[in-house]
Amino acid sequence: MAHLIIQTDFGTGSASVSAMHGVAAVVDPDLRVDDGNNDVAQFNVLDASESLMYLLPYWPEGTVFVSVVDPGVGTSRRSCVAKLSNGSYIVTPDNGTLTYVKERFGITAVREIDESVNRLSGSQDVHIFHGRDVYAYCGARLAAGIIDFEGVGPEYPVDEIVEAPYIRPEKKPGEVSGMINEAGEHFGLIGTNIPFSWLSESGMEYGDTVRVTVLRDGETVMDAEMPLEKTFGYVPVGSPLVFSSETRTAMMAINQGNATLQYGLGFGPSWKMIIRKV
Amino acid sequence: MAHLIIQTDFGTGSASVSAMHGVAAVVDPDLRVDDGNNDVAQFNVLDASESLMYLLPYWPEGTVFVSVVDPGVGTSRRSCVAKLSNGSYIVTPDNGTLTYVKERFGITAVREIDESVNRLSGSQDVHIFHGRDVYAYCGARLAAGIIDFEGVGPEYPVDEIVEAPYIRPEKKPGEVSGMINEAGEHFGLIGTNIPFSWLSESGMEYGDTVRVTVLRDGETVMDAEMPLEKTFGYVPVGSPLVFSSETRTAMMAINQGNATLQYGLGFGPSWKMIIRKV
Amino acid sequence: MAHLIIQTDFGTGSASVSAMHGVAAVVDPDLRVDDGNNDVAQFNVLDASESLMYLLPYWPEGTVFVSVVDPGVGTSRRSCVAKLSNGSYIVTPDNGTLTYVKERFGITAVREIDESVNRLSGSQDVHIFHGRDVYAYCGARLAAGIIDFEGVGPEYPVDEIVEAPYIRPEKKPGEVSGMINEAGEHFGLIGTNIPFSWLSESGMEYGDTVRVTVLRDGETVMDAEMPLEKTFGYVPVGSPLVFSSETRTAMMAINQGNATLQYGLGFGPSWKMIIRKV
Repeated sequence: MAHLIIQTDFGTGSASVSAMHGVAAVVDPDLRVDDGNNDVAQFNVLDASESLMYLLPYWPEGTVFVSVVDPGVGTSRRSCVAKLSNGSYIVTPDNGTLTYVKERFGITAVREIDESVNRLSGSQDVHIFHGRDVYAYCGARLAAGIIDFEGVGPEYPVDEIVEAPYIRPEKKPGEVSGMINEAGEHFGLIGTNIPFSWLSESGMEYGDTVRVTVLRDGETVMDAEMPLEKTFGYVPVGSPLVFSSETRTAMMAINQGNATLQYGLGFGPSWKMIIRKV
Repeated sequence: MAHLIIQTDFGTGSASVSAMHGVAAVVDPDLRVDDGNNDVAQFNVLDASESLMYLLPYWPEGTVFVSVVDPGVGTSRRSCVAKLSNGSYIVTPDNGTLTYVKERFGITAVREIDESVNRLSGSQDVHIFHGRDVYAYCGARLAAGIIDFEGVGPEYPVDEIVEAPYIRPEKKPGEVSGMINEAGEHFGLIGTNIPFSWLSESGMEYGDTVRVTVLRDGETVMDAEMPLEKTFGYVPVGSPLVFSSETRTAMMAINQGNATLQYGLGFGPSWKMIIRKV
Repeated sequence: MAHLIIQTDFGTGSASVSAMHGVAAVVDPDLRVDDGNNDVAQFNVLDASESLMYLLPYWPEGTVFVSVVDPGVGTSRRSCVAKLSNGSYIVTPDNGTLTYVKERFGITAVREIDESVNRLSGSQDVHIFHGRDVYAYCGARLAAGIIDFEGVGPEYPVDEIVEAPYIRPEKKPGEVSGMINEAGEHFGLIGTNIPFSWLSESGMEYGDTVRVTVLRDGETVMDAEMPLEKTFGYVPVGSPLVFSSETRTAMMAINQGNATLQYGLGFGPSWKMIIRKV
């Protein structure tokens, strides 16, 4: 039986997340339900997409992910289930949450959820919590094998899946750039969508000093030189570095410090990072 | 085997919650243990009661809920297990936590926990953590079928269950009122105990403008007009609205904003909301 | 099948913790994976050790704990699995995390993780997240019975396990002292490593008034008299007390208040508490 993984922007520990677990337990008490990331940035479909990309490779093939970042709940956006290239599924509003998954992981088919079948009985008068009444319920039925993918509802073209705009990474000799897609609060890590392998392809190697420039809406808000290293321990405590994240993208941090706070950085389509060979 | 659901005011991610999961695993490693809401407002038995009401309908019948909001731990309040009208159970100090469950969900019987049987062996000298040593242990034994309800301890009258005072909802033509029972930090949702169906019974319909007044200890702290709508997306970002919560009570929010912070609101028996037809 | 318990300093609800759960599910979808404490103080190996001591007695014998507080990730510290006196295991960097476990719980043997076998396939180029790629993976294999303890890698002497320096508790007539090892944010509890039984051995009994002095790096930052009681409810709301923690150490708190904030206290090897008979 497949795992069912819950991702939301409700905040970790929210009673709403527990109610979603409960709905899954009612569908099938033997289901394996676990949490993904329930601290997705509020209303932020690109952050939801990034979080899915982070989790997808580390859960078994066939896992059913339920992702609820749904500022348009109760309005006309589609509710869908996407089937991925590895046989896993994502149950989500079709509102941009699938952007990166579609481009970089691979979606083989998508179906709109038929709420006449795949909605918790008696919930039709609740307009604000499709996460519980539609997505968790439908996802649990799929994970439990009560419905198959065809049972979700009518198929529509993968091309029609909504994509949210973002800054694509670029590479040229001696320089790479891309979007900051993470400005962590906890460790203060600054993540980007720049493939780490591009740095060496652009001529930057471990041990080199690089220059990191961050622009917000085109205006420079940070500009500093730092080493390119394998891990934190290669620089003194309190010093910045560029390194490869656990998803093999370029990342910046301060060893045992907090780059988000120290440099005052944010993330999303307003935030661009450029890394240059010095 | 029944699910065992842990609710506390210890904070999500507390090691104490993990120790409670562990005690259950020692009782029976096959038990299905999951979290309810571990961010119940500290020492707040009405918030514990509201949270139980939120979760109860969405977990399978027969589920055992352990609720630990226990400012009187180690003193003379009773420890009890309540059997509910749907066959589920709540294991809790009898300190007001059962208030709403008794009135609105239905308790068929209640028993005092016999600590000579249903207390973790060797814990008698620990006076501050009955959540682990008594409630999780007793709840796990009940969920695992090691004891039945009679095995909890001696029965006492349901009438004796402690109820905490609160503001009851009222309805008259053109006006409903009740207690604010939620002032969320995360999305800033303002929840009440006013049944949403009362608004239409009092003459207020979707699309109408209503006037929302909030009083704290009888003094007006907010007074504003806003539309009554099905969901957030029907008003502009940053605008307030009244709508039906996922538990079908009247709720106020600001679309993609935070009404708690913007209006400076709190919750509990000091906080009353009045909604009037304009 | 043994439980696998995840403890980190990543923060509760971190997507990284979910990726660790996922790796375990890939190793064996039937594994029982749960969280310990993912709010260990950042980079703080003694706090990791204290948290393990808190959890160890309450999870079944044979449980596999994965502890990831790893400021030296990717550098030369050993990765190890310690076998405990009760048959449980701890998978961790050998960086001081095992300090208290070695001294007070008992480690019967320790082995260095052979990454040529016990590392997630294809992760060799990731230098910053051994929690996922080595510790969760190796721990899951051990919990699932895919490897036995010998399969972890080569044994080394328990004596070589790294210990972090800390303030040891002391006892004399009328006075006990030790390290503050917890200054909670949530309830503001001030925990120490002073065995509570030492208070009566030094002549202090329930109902007595004691004098509590806190020194930071040798300088007095708090000095107050308060009663020694069994639990919070024996003192008025807002009053301080000394009592026995749920791990039977001396603890200080303010009833329904927050001693951490009110007295401005911290924890760790800089913070010493002295409790004297008045």
